[in-house]
Amino acid sequence: MARTQGSHSEITRPRVRAAALKLFAEHGYAAVSMRQIAREVGLQAGALYNYTPDKQDLLFSLMKAHMDELLAACSERVSQGDAMARLRAFVDFHITFHMGRADEIFIAYMELRNLTPENFETIEALRRSYENHLEAILAAGLSEGIFDVPDSKVTTLAVIAMLTGITTWYRPDGRLSPEEVSELYWNMVRKVVGA
Amino acid sequence: MARTQGSHSEITRPRVRAAALKLFAEHGYAAVSMRQIAREVGLQAGALYNYTPDKQDLLFSLMKAHMDELLAACSERVSQGDAMARLRAFVDFHITFHMGRADEIFIAYMELRNLTPENFETIEALRRSYENHLEAILAAGLSEGIFDVPDSKVTTLAVIAMLTGITTWYRPDGRLSPEEVSELYWNMVRKVVGA
Repeated sequence: MARTQGSHSEITRPRVRAAALKLFAEHGYAAVSMRQIAREVGLQAGALYNYTPDKQDLLFSLMKAHMDELLAACSERVSQGDAMARLRAFVDFHITFHMGRADEIFIAYMELRNLTPENFETIEALRRSYENHLEAILAAGLSEGIFDVPDSKVTTLAVIAMLTGITTWYRPDGRLSPEEVSELYWNMVRKVVGA
Repeated sequence: MARTQGSHSEITRPRVRAAALKLFAEHGYAAVSMRQIAREVGLQAGALYNYTPDKQDLLFSLMKAHMDELLAACSERVSQGDAMARLRAFVDFHITFHMGRADEIFIAYMELRNLTPENFETIEALRRSYENHLEAILAAGLSEGIFDVPDSKVTTLAVIAMLTGITTWYRPDGRLSPEEVSELYWNMVRKVVGA
């Protein structure tokens, strides 16, 4: 019995999270009820509480999972070579990671206001940690003497905003392939850092 | 009597809009009721309908007023000189216009999903019209032979995303003045367009 229940839970938990992600992105966190999430998954309202203590926990775990995945994938993909190679890898990574995650990005930015102060602090720390990844690359390029960046914090924020902007307009069936988009943005980022 | 009522309406209408803006930014459009907006202004729920037919009308008129103001101010401030002077003016304009309007920007991006299709089309057209303003400057710089931009549409979107990003981090009591921020971003935009 325990085995069956375990397997059942492993199937249902991701479906609960996917339903919450979809509904939060569509209507906004504040407008979505636990009852709606349960209905979307085909659960009784009460049964949903076997998978999550409350709506705040769902929002926080979605945002935290997104940031954890982003940080782990970034560390794996953006660690080899000199500052130039790492910057190129960062641009590529950031673009491809974000392209298929419009709902996650939308929520990551828009629902910060609905986190409890403690959860907000945790997510903000993860976000700063991601920004620090790029800032460290800029610092490395400065000390290697190949970048020209007057303010590495502002440049970091500007580059991330520029790259993340693709989620508001990129369409897979549009005129540009992911590789072409990445190449165009790399060309711009390279110029921004003066390399 | 007509005079008094007119004056009264001229005072109350902006208060209704300010209350809607504040509440939409705080809780999200879908989670805010007409009753809450009325309460915020100190009106009976029924009296609110003297100022607006419904919540959709409030959202649309807030977003449209924001875009109309943006376009008018941009046309006024960014029309003199060669492409380089106009690009410099555009960067300055975009940054200063957006700095004090965090709620408006937040709603302009966040609540697009809650517009009716017809209203969405209107707002999208205004947004494209703003983008075209920058794209025309890039085209002018290309034909003057002073800019190097492989894809002026993508560059337009990238520059706007980069500049608008300041609304997520800029604080008036932080380490940088608006002029310093503008100078840092101008330095980056100039490099992006290869000038």
